[in-house]
Amino acid sequence: MTPDLDARTKDFGREIFARLDRQGPVLFTRPWLEDKLMGLGMHDPALKVQLFRFVDTLPYLKEDTEVSRHLREYLGEAGDQLPRWVRRGMAWIPQRGLLSQLLAWQARSNAERMARKFIAGSNVAEAVQAVWRMRTRRLAFTIDLLGEATITEAEADHVQKQYLDLIRGLTHEVNAWPEEPIIDRDDRGPLPRVNVSVKLSALYSQFDPIDPEGTSRAVRRRLRPILALAKQTGAFVNFDMEQYSFKDTTLRIFREILTEPEFRDWPHVGIAIQAYLTDTEADLHQLLDWVKYERRCPVWIRLVKGAYWDYETVLAAQHGWPVPVFTQKWQSDANFEKLTEFLLANVEWLVPAFGSHNIRSIAHAMAVAEQLQVPPRRFEFQMLYGMADPIKEAIQSLGYRVRIYTPYGQLLPGMAYLVRRLLENSSNDSFLRQGFAEGLSEEVLLRNPCDLSLLLRPQPIEKPPMLATNGQTVTSPTSPKAPPDEHFQNEPLSDFSRATNRDQMAAALREVRSQFGRTYPVVIDNQSQPVAKTLDSLNPSRISERVGTVAVATVEQANAAVASCLRAFDAWRDTPVEERAAFLKRVAQQFRRRRFELAAWICLETGKPWRESDADVAEAIDFCEYYAIEMQKLGRPQHRDVPGEDNRYFYEPRGVAVVIAPWNFPLAILTGMTTAALVTGNTVVMKPAEQSAIVGAKLMECLQAAGLPPGVANFVPGVGEEIGPTLVQHPDVALIAFTGSLKVALMINEQAAKTPGGQNFVKKVIAEMGGKNAIIVDDDADLDEAIKGVVDSAFGYAGQKCSAGSRAIVLSGIYEQFLNRLVEATKSLTVAPADEPGCSVGPVIDAEARDRILKMIDIGRREARLVYQTDVGALATQGYFVGPTIFADVPETATIAQEEIFGPVLSVMRAQDLDDALRIANGVKYALTGACFSRSPTNLEKVKRKFRVGNLYINRKCTGALVDRQPFGGFKLSGIGSKAGGPDYLLQFLVPRTVTENQMRRGFAPEPDAVA
Amino acid sequence: MTPDLDARTKDFGREIFARLDRQGPVLFTRPWLEDKLMGLGMHDPALKVQLFRFVDTLPYLKEDTEVSRHLREYLGEAGDQLPRWVRRGMAWIPQRGLLSQLLAWQARSNAERMARKFIAGSNVAEAVQAVWRMRTRRLAFTIDLLGEATITEAEADHVQKQYLDLIRGLTHEVNAWPEEPIIDRDDRGPLPRVNVSVKLSALYSQFDPIDPEGTSRAVRRRLRPILALAKQTGAFVNFDMEQYSFKDTTLRIFREILTEPEFRDWPHVGIAIQAYLTDTEADLHQLLDWVKYERRCPVWIRLVKGAYWDYETVLAAQHGWPVPVFTQKWQSDANFEKLTEFLLANVEWLVPAFGSHNIRSIAHAMAVAEQLQVPPRRFEFQMLYGMADPIKEAIQSLGYRVRIYTPYGQLLPGMAYLVRRLLENSSNDSFLRQGFAEGLSEEVLLRNPCDLSLLLRPQPIEKPPMLATNGQTVTSPTSPKAPPDEHFQNEPLSDFSRATNRDQMAAALREVRSQFGRTYPVVIDNQSQPVAKTLDSLNPSRISERVGTVAVATVEQANAAVASCLRAFDAWRDTPVEERAAFLKRVAQQFRRRRFELAAWICLETGKPWRESDADVAEAIDFCEYYAIEMQKLGRPQHRDVPGEDNRYFYEPRGVAVVIAPWNFPLAILTGMTTAALVTGNTVVMKPAEQSAIVGAKLMECLQAAGLPPGVANFVPGVGEEIGPTLVQHPDVALIAFTGSLKVALMINEQAAKTPGGQNFVKKVIAEMGGKNAIIVDDDADLDEAIKGVVDSAFGYAGQKCSAGSRAIVLSGIYEQFLNRLVEATKSLTVAPADEPGCSVGPVIDAEARDRILKMIDIGRREARLVYQTDVGALATQGYFVGPTIFADVPETATIAQEEIFGPVLSVMRAQDLDDALRIANGVKYALTGACFSRSPTNLEKVKRKFRVGNLYINRKCTGALVDRQPFGGFKLSGIGSKAGGPDYLLQFLVPRTVTENQMRRGFAPEPDAVA
Repeated sequence: MTPDLDARTKDFGREIFARLDRQGPVLFTRPWLEDKLMGLGMHDPALKVQLFRFVDTLPYLKEDTEVSRHLREYLGEAGDQLPRWVRRGMAWIPQRGLLSQLLAWQARSNAERMARKFIAGSNVAEAVQAVWRMRTRRLAFTIDLLGEATITEAEADHVQKQYLDLIRGLTHEVNAWPEEPIIDRDDRGPLPRVNVSVKLSALYSQFDPIDPEGTSRAVRRRLRPILALAKQTGAFVNFDMEQYSFKDTTLRIFREILTEPEFRDWPHVGIAIQAYLTDTEADLHQLLDWVKYERRCPVWIRLVKGAYWDYETVLAAQHGWPVPVFTQKWQSDANFEKLTEFLLANVEWLVPAFGSHNIRSIAHAMAVAEQLQVPPRRFEFQMLYGMADPIKEAIQSLGYRVRIYTPYGQLLPGMAYLVRRLLENSSNDSFLRQGFAEGLSEEVLLRNPCDLSLLLRPQPIEKPPMLATNGQTVTSPTSPKAPPDEHFQNEPLSDFSRATNRDQMAAALREVRSQFGRTYPVVIDNQSQPVAKTLDSLNPSRISERVGTVAVATVEQANAAVASCLRAFDAWRDTPVEERAAFLKRVAQQFRRRRFELAAWICLETGKPWRESDADVAEAIDFCEYYAIEMQKLGRPQHRDVPGEDNRYFYEPRGVAVVIAPWNFPLAILTGMTTAALVTGNTVVMKPAEQSAIVGAKLMECLQAAGLPPGVANFVPGVGEEIGPTLVQHPDVALIAFTGSLKVALMINEQAAKTPGGQNFVKKVIAEMGGKNAIIVDDDADLDEAIKGVVDSAFGYAGQKCSAGSRAIVLSGIYEQFLNRLVEATKSLTVAPADEPGCSVGPVIDAEARDRILKMIDIGRREARLVYQTDVGALATQGYFVGPTIFADVPETATIAQEEIFGPVLSVMRAQDLDDALRIANGVKYALTGACFSRSPTNLEKVKRKFRVGNLYINRKCTGALVDRQPFGGFKLSGIGSKAGGPDYLLQFLVPRTVTENQMRRGFAPEPDAVA
Repeated sequence: MTPDLDARTKDFGREIFARLDRQGPVLFTRPWLEDKLMGLGMHDPALKVQLFRFVDTLPYLKEDTEVSRHLREYLGEAGDQLPRWVRRGMAWIPQRGLLSQLLAWQARSNAERMARKFIAGSNVAEAVQAVWRMRTRRLAFTIDLLGEATITEAEADHVQKQYLDLIRGLTHEVNAWPEEPIIDRDDRGPLPRVNVSVKLSALYSQFDPIDPEGTSRAVRRRLRPILALAKQTGAFVNFDMEQYSFKDTTLRIFREILTEPEFRDWPHVGIAIQAYLTDTEADLHQLLDWVKYERRCPVWIRLVKGAYWDYETVLAAQHGWPVPVFTQKWQSDANFEKLTEFLLANVEWLVPAFGSHNIRSIAHAMAVAEQLQVPPRRFEFQMLYGMADPIKEAIQSLGYRVRIYTPYGQLLPGMAYLVRRLLENSSNDSFLRQGFAEGLSEEVLLRNPCDLSLLLRPQPIEKPPMLATNGQTVTSPTSPKAPPDEHFQNEPLSDFSRATNRDQMAAALREVRSQFGRTYPVVIDNQSQPVAKTLDSLNPSRISERVGTVAVATVEQANAAVASCLRAFDAWRDTPVEERAAFLKRVAQQFRRRRFELAAWICLETGKPWRESDADVAEAIDFCEYYAIEMQKLGRPQHRDVPGEDNRYFYEPRGVAVVIAPWNFPLAILTGMTTAALVTGNTVVMKPAEQSAIVGAKLMECLQAAGLPPGVANFVPGVGEEIGPTLVQHPDVALIAFTGSLKVALMINEQAAKTPGGQNFVKKVIAEMGGKNAIIVDDDADLDEAIKGVVDSAFGYAGQKCSAGSRAIVLSGIYEQFLNRLVEATKSLTVAPADEPGCSVGPVIDAEARDRILKMIDIGRREARLVYQTDVGALATQGYFVGPTIFADVPETATIAQEEIFGPVLSVMRAQDLDDALRIANGVKYALTGACFSRSPTNLEKVKRKFRVGNLYINRKCTGALVDRQPFGGFKLSGIGSKAGGPDYLLQFLVPRTVTENQMRRGFAPEPDAVA
């Protein structure tokens, strides 16, 4: 930036400041709750969180007593972290009676009043009134329709209809008003008066960047009538920008639909672009190229900083993905200025609307425009309804057009919008907060953001992990109690919103298909064994495809594998822990190298959709890395020394381990059990499931490529009934690690407990079995989240996870509302072959599974009310497909409410209250996973205590456990051993030893550490 | 001290200094090894330890190659801690051949030369020569006979004979020499020329302060002829003082024998008294009273600082006992001066001999004597042979009598003496080191020790634990890696060298006997149940004594107990961890309060000797305290939080636990399993062994006194065969914790592994079974230690510990020597009723056990060579006694070498080399405990790696594991679960849970810790 430009920027800034009164109520008005919220929220993070959560929940609370209960609970939860006056005040919150009603009314009306400040109304008529008031102040508008998340196709249709109604309604009114030139014209002529903003994700329930093509097709179908009406009525349509993962798909849809012949010459269209994204500069260059050389008709660009900063940084940290936003506020501000200059330089093609309340940013745009001689009304400024009104007036008074982003809609979705605005305003980095609440000087506020880099304020959230370009996390936030050991990091899932990942997956699927039909032998001592009997492995999505042929191990081969393991045991046990850990890390490297290929094998052999196949490989990597690190910790003896006596406590492996794995996580679970056994020094007979033996063979390839010594792991695919008992009862087998059905687990446990003469140890059995997992939906649950969570849990991977949620236990108060929306959301799912990226529900594993599930559905029809079942149509013959199925009013004793189905079948059950829900949830023989959606802190505390399952999830789905973060496994009849991927897992593969050394000789003990 | 006295002290000191040449070789002569040892030892603790250990081992090494091997190993072990030149030098140590022979010869002759500096010879003739040389320098002598530890009665007889020979031999020679008045007379007449020093512990193999009466009787029997000969020949006898635990018994014997009519008028007798003991001042007052008012004839007091400082502090730290010595050197010096003044003031009764090389201490004695006008030769100074010769000369030249403490004996025991002297000289606090090697100024060296308190030098060993008067440890030495949690401390064992503990134990035995004959019912819900069938419990030491009568629970009562536990479970599970931990601590308090009473019950019901009964109670206390602390740690959830997602990993109890305990640790093991189950939140059915059900009833009393809620633990004594299967197979029993026989454990494991319909969990079995534990004796082992270790391991508690050592695997080179001495040591054991304090081997538990053991002995007679069996005589009918039995040349496949006998039967086996020994040791189906005695660092490293047992002990017995320090338990057929009293034990009683809470709402996640 030239010094001239900076000086002009400051001139404009000072002029704006001169025109506004910084003492007045720029941000806030009187109401108690609002004042408290904003005032306290700025200085008290705990209170801010709790009050905002309370406000978010408020519209859901039907009873007055519920309001006071929630307020009490939210404040109670923050406990000691609250200021003393708040804690004292809590005692005064009435629990019931007139005072409670009064409080509820007060809270509601305050919240509503607050919301009304930012939301222009709850219907078109109110929105029109608001617009009229703005016109009287010479302010333009764009209207945005607030809505709940679109999780059903019915909702998407409804959104479309609302936009059509809105445009019609506004056109009728607004175009009849007298012209206001400053807003209705620019330097070249009239502008559309009616201006609407559209969120694309509201127009399609399955909006998903993994399938940009399908998503674009569906969105455009609903968008076209809206654009057509707008074009026809002379209205303007802006495409809003949402979270980062939707950006590329949104841009794609924008370009695709505006290149359609019907719209390619239409200039009254724009898109929001976020300056806080590091991608944005490149995106704008691409847009410019497209608009200049392809479409040849300008579009508007609403340049904003971006409203999802918290979300993006947290999400990136959670996934171990690169942070897509600038992590310092000044960087976003600087980028905004840079992009401002780019847009104004290309104003003929990309017409800028600067969306900011930051006077420096605004002044800078003015100065740049002046320098480039862009007329003041060729572009415009945009600000939010209800915020910073004096700034709007000041800018307007300088002759610029100011357009107000004006949301309208119901209170329910409105609260979400309200909370986002409140957060924005109370953020430490907010210009408005700094400028008005904290009263920083003009000089500071108008400083060039690049100068600020040396004067950083603390960031409002802890630094998210920075990722190197290879996708490996460099640093990350962790529990402060983590030991100073090498730190485990979950392998990031592939981000399929990135084209490069989608392309690699598609290529891997092609490549793997080209390898179909091969034969996979038994491998003992790293030698392929002669193949006699075999089994074919078919693609469950397309049973005409034979993925390959796998040898069926004989009993002799099973015995030979055990003998080989026994031979290899001594040397492997005596291999230093560091070397065994290094071996696991090399296996992980093999997985990384072949990541998409392995995911493709999984997808094609087991009918697992893209994301879940990818997650399977990531989890396998996690097991290798986690167990390697855990074993390094366990490998260090624990000392309990006293003067004259050294005591060491350490571990040794048990011997030969047999690993019997299931097909549903064909790589991850087989890898997890195998690497746990290996890193602890045991040798392993690996028996994969018949249905996923090829993926098992791929694991064996990776082990060998990582330098597996002969016999340390042997690969013995085969039929469980044939070789299982041989392996389990073999007198040289010390340990059996099994994941699979309850029946088989109990049989193994019983067989292994027999200790015949000559077997000089008691066998150890580690078993993980099934689940009948429930999701409790409290009556104050956020239904957007709850329904999405239940659908994902019940129908993800066609319900074929031990962790799948097969019971939804819904509180009476919300039961019908939940059920109706759930059915609609389920209807909206895409049942498809797993190798198609848009597949939300794929096939089940084989014909036996399909028939078993269909039989259970038949039983369900007799026991309960079938409310929905997807007709899979032609897929039924193409593969092993079962449509997602929902039973309602299921009695708690019903077979479908008690037995594991392992398919896409959900039982919805009604509970009178939370205690009843907990009783039902716990009333099964399993205890694996569970979830609860609620916004009552007290209820959540109770659920955490009393919902007794191995893995409980609060306000999220009950599947998708990550190694280390959510060690996986249950009790009751869900598991025998402890949690896989958790701190106690490896202990099961080990026996502890103690060595005590008397150091005293001749009455003399060396000083501590004198001798190693 | 008056300023005058201090001034005179300094005058004397300066005079002494003036008479000696501090530059000369006061301490050291030329030989290479000695120079290196002393020079390096002072500055390099690691090297010092290793070189001293090498010297200690040297006399045992028969082959030259063994010498170079050991040197290489000792230096190798210190590794990085050695100075670089030593590490470089190690490469040059020859392994075999001529150079190796040369090195061995050099090492041996250097060590011998060193030893010869401190030891006057290896036989009487050489001793006489040395004495003659001293006389020529006008120095008197007292002769001390160096010997190995006396661990057999034959050795004690031999020591007696040697003293008699010594006195005769010396008298014959020395009294014929011309008189040397300065040493042969004091101011009143002639003094005995012949002067010998006697260690009382050398005169009785079972010298044990727990039984002062029996010990005194045995020692006096052998001492009497020595004193009689001395009296008759006009010689002087001094009683040496050894470790603190022997002090009171030594004083008692001194007083008892010198009050006998034959010796009460004999003045030529004395005793050594240690100024470093805090007790000593009181002891001297008692001695004065005794000598003045009872004996009425003076004795000599040799006042020394004390030579066991390291040993005493380490032992106290290891046992958690009060440190008996002053922990600061200046305190001992000050006490020495205080006692000097006391003795010189009472010189008519307690004639002092000041044993010190410290010129300040010596000068102080001179000044005090001058002040009190005690003639210079009424008392004397004593110093060690071979040390500080110039000081001796200087003092002698001032007209004082100086007597030289002159040891003679074989090189083997001599090395121990040598090492102690080397250590003394190289200690940081040594006056000689400070005065001569470090050259501190006279002013500093002569300072009043009380002034030094502000100028402390660092202590050579880390601070030992200080104990409060109530016996509770206040601080203690621990591994620097110990977590910052509440720190576990082992409950100190009762120190039976203290009269108060012996008296309390005797009183408790009387009190418990007065309660014999009572009836103990089943207790359910804290209610005593009606008694129908009963069993009598007899005292195994005296089967005519009925200890009491115990109800035999019916199957109905067993079922009722489970039902009660199930009812109590929910509330107990939900009781906060802190409260459950506090409950355990209250139980521990009950145990402490009733400590001797409980020990008496154990002693009388199970025939367990005093020390082991006491240890049983201490271990029960340890389990309570340890599990309480461990559960507090486990009770804190482990966090794995990421932004926007809280993850907690925590534990829950399993349900109803059945605890089935053995009789051999009747309180400790029942308490351990029960409290582990309770503190983790399970409820418990306690089934004690039939043979120790009364001790079980006492535990139930303690639990109730500590506030046991009804049903949380129920007491169900009974017959295993009757109620065992009911309890184990009960569908409401989630966990069985069993300690006992292999056969029963395997049956329980098999029964529990069946999971019938309706039982909604898989039972957990924790079992600890038997052992066939071996002790390997390497050919360089310290035989004193090895034999004592084997005898203790094999015959302690009549071999009735799972940990008992029932196989001694001895390397060929030392086999005969070991076996002979072992038999003698075993012969010397006292087989007696367990309630007698002097009992070293008590009865076995019951007639069935006795018969089973005798049958095994019969089998042994056919399989191997019976080399010794104690005839128990009349005890055979009084109780269930089996005499300690030793078989030699036992083949490794013999039944007595493979099967657990659980009685006082030891198999001695010959091994060709260490690998052979390890092969034999590991060649059984058990893997519980083991030990190895060796002084080869390399062999010990191999043993630690390859002797695969749960608890391995180096250079100590294989019994006596302590909670936390030596978590106890094995693998193979010795155990299923992990180690009791160890860090993983409680996990078995728990199931892990994970709770994941999505903290993100509306795209906003609270800052970490914003909400609890």
